[in-house]
Amino acid sequence: MIKDSYKLTASEALATIASGRLSSVELVKSCLARIAETDGTIKAWAFLDGDAALAQAAECDRIRIAGLATGPLHGIPVGLKDIIDTAKMPTQRGTPIFEGRQTDHVARLVELLREAGAVIMGKTVTTELAFVHANETRNPHNPNHSPGGSSSGSAAAVAAQHVPLAIGTQTNGSVIRPASFCGTFGFKPTRGVISRDGILQTSVSLDQVGCFGRSLADVALLTDAIGGYDQRDAVSFARPRPNMSAGVAADAPVTPALAWFDLPFNDRLSEDARGGIDSVLEILGPSVEKMAAADTLSDLVGVQACIHEYEIARHQADVFDGNWDQISDTLKPVITRARTITKTQYDDAIAVKASAEAFFKAFFIDYDAIIAPSAAGEAPHFGKGTGDPIFCTLWTLAGLPCVSLPLLVGETGLPIGLQLIGPAEKDDRLLRTAGWLQKHLSETVK
Amino acid sequence: MIKDSYKLTASEALATIASGRLSSVELVKSCLARIAETDGTIKAWAFLDGDAALAQAAECDRIRIAGLATGPLHGIPVGLKDIIDTAKMPTQRGTPIFEGRQTDHVARLVELLREAGAVIMGKTVTTELAFVHANETRNPHNPNHSPGGSSSGSAAAVAAQHVPLAIGTQTNGSVIRPASFCGTFGFKPTRGVISRDGILQTSVSLDQVGCFGRSLADVALLTDAIGGYDQRDAVSFARPRPNMSAGVAADAPVTPALAWFDLPFNDRLSEDARGGIDSVLEILGPSVEKMAAADTLSDLVGVQACIHEYEIARHQADVFDGNWDQISDTLKPVITRARTITKTQYDDAIAVKASAEAFFKAFFIDYDAIIAPSAAGEAPHFGKGTGDPIFCTLWTLAGLPCVSLPLLVGETGLPIGLQLIGPAEKDDRLLRTAGWLQKHLSETVK
Repeated sequence: MIKDSYKLTASEALATIASGRLSSVELVKSCLARIAETDGTIKAWAFLDGDAALAQAAECDRIRIAGLATGPLHGIPVGLKDIIDTAKMPTQRGTPIFEGRQTDHVARLVELLREAGAVIMGKTVTTELAFVHANETRNPHNPNHSPGGSSSGSAAAVAAQHVPLAIGTQTNGSVIRPASFCGTFGFKPTRGVISRDGILQTSVSLDQVGCFGRSLADVALLTDAIGGYDQRDAVSFARPRPNMSAGVAADAPVTPALAWFDLPFNDRLSEDARGGIDSVLEILGPSVEKMAAADTLSDLVGVQACIHEYEIARHQADVFDGNWDQISDTLKPVITRARTITKTQYDDAIAVKASAEAFFKAFFIDYDAIIAPSAAGEAPHFGKGTGDPIFCTLWTLAGLPCVSLPLLVGETGLPIGLQLIGPAEKDDRLLRTAGWLQKHLSETVK
Repeated sequence: MIKDSYKLTASEALATIASGRLSSVELVKSCLARIAETDGTIKAWAFLDGDAALAQAAECDRIRIAGLATGPLHGIPVGLKDIIDTAKMPTQRGTPIFEGRQTDHVARLVELLREAGAVIMGKTVTTELAFVHANETRNPHNPNHSPGGSSSGSAAAVAAQHVPLAIGTQTNGSVIRPASFCGTFGFKPTRGVISRDGILQTSVSLDQVGCFGRSLADVALLTDAIGGYDQRDAVSFARPRPNMSAGVAADAPVTPALAWFDLPFNDRLSEDARGGIDSVLEILGPSVEKMAAADTLSDLVGVQACIHEYEIARHQADVFDGNWDQISDTLKPVITRARTITKTQYDDAIAVKASAEAFFKAFFIDYDAIIAPSAAGEAPHFGKGTGDPIFCTLWTLAGLPCVSLPLLVGETGLPIGLQLIGPAEKDDRLLRTAGWLQKHLSETVK
């Protein structure tokens, strides 16, 4: 029996379980105790049934003891953003409209988690309909601050050591930004790697699944387990997909070629974030090529907004039409505006999105990764929104893989992430570069 | 460029492609040339479009050259039994009733093959509706003999070195028996490991997918690539499944405990098969425990027939009712008899099947594997049916993993397989035992 096993990363817990010194039941009990102790303040969980989680853990232990096959996440508890459908647990989507909502459908990624031997711990708090309006979750580093959103509870739960792993979604910056604010690793793989079946649709063109963990190896492990082709998802692809864990384990053969874009909206960076990034860029020296970005690149921010708003207003038209009085005052004006977007404007935006994808495809012939902020700075104060997503927008629009590394610290001691973005379908190379960066900086600072 | 690359196993071809000495296009061209040269006699293929296969191979090569992710079967051609649906190729099910049948549906295992990077080579000949009536395929070792059935073309294509890998199905003995007759490896994993979505349903309780290859590592590799939970298949399970390749690669820690059943129908073994098996049992000596089988075990043969016939008559009632004049004279009396089976008889058979599964679950606590014949002897002469499946019936009924190893030779020089059967969901241990047996026998004979 390991004391305080809730502190272990998933990779550490798997090794400890394999060695016989820890059972899944002990691990889940430790996590439940940690949640009981701290979630009164943090409020990361929208639904938690400790007995159900322990029953799953006991079954994992039984399978192991019986000598049956074990999976790559065998016995490891995982939190799910409360827009991901599971049978036996409510999925309430962060709005009173869906309070108590229970479906029989099991999201494809939940099936894959079960095949991987994971324990479905419960549902983590999302913003209202995974969009702009924050719910009650607090930042584990300082409860007076926001954890970010929309995957608020998933980021907070991993940061607070409630679970080693959690799953979120990103339509603009909803994985990378809360990972940055909460000081976890966040990884959003190439669009189409993880099926969105059984997940609230806010934007068929932009919604993407991402993973939170407390190490690069952990987010890779989780992504490998839940990736795979699914004909029910229009952007899923039946081609070989990158092996994320192999990417993390690989050594960069040469110093990676990195690019930094001088974008007009970089002036939104806080002073401490700008300072932290500058010191990283200084350490990296000539391996980062700084370049002026064409105006068309920053125009993509409006393109993302147009597609996102147009699509959510239509995908969820029935929800908005039938429950307008239950929609938050934060979201109402966004949907009202969204309804004025014309089909022509939307079609134009979709065309620009395609050209952006083509631009990045050509761009990455010469670079391993783009280095960028994960967010504008430290987490905003609680009640002041979930933070500016603009440093994620371009990459999400183009469906590129992105990873946030918790490398910086802000002026009040809150974490700030550094983001790396790679070419589509070369997530393994991106993660290899991320591993290189992490190692290179730790060796340089030493 | 490797000369005659059609001779390579899948594992060898993968290593050669990875080393840069072979492309998928070259491999597929070599296989197509081999098919062109020999399939006039063997008739393993129901549908083959060389240009389409080469286009897939070229795409595999392009992906590799672009540095994108490659799959575990990247660039390797695979044959599919002609009851497995694919878009872009007809699936004609071995009967004139479905001549030219083309569906838009893609079987789940075909999706997984595409994700694994495989080249879908074409459709291999099946018996009529994957049941008793043979079609035109000949045994590659002697065209005057049957290749067995119902996965006739898949076994023959692998044995004739048309493709390194092929997929079949088994409801009674339709993978293990043709593997035995054609001298290939045949592996039918635990029921539920491979989804049957998109495959002609002949018996929801008994139909199982299996793999043909020219090495144990190859059938394991293929099974790992196409296994996985699928909610559309009632016997699929969302639990971790055994890693087949790890099973093959593992060394047996101690001499495996094997069991041999003295079954009443062992008297159907031909003299040469009996002699071959006896010499193997002699080499194995005390590591095989010979035991008298309870009568209830041989009664299971009737139980399998009852379920199989009752179910196919009902699943395919429309096909039989609407096309009776196009049903073979071999199948007609089976279906006529099937229609007389009562619901009570069927329900009883299902209950006995469950008790057989419980029996084997308890049995395998003390044994690693059962050793048994794969078939009654050499392949029958062409036109004399597809051979007696009785040596596969019990294990298929109970959903146990089975593997046929091409270890024996009959009196006219045709191959005869030896079968090992393991506990459900411990396929990896079965394959480890199979690897041990293969090595042990080759060292002893040396």
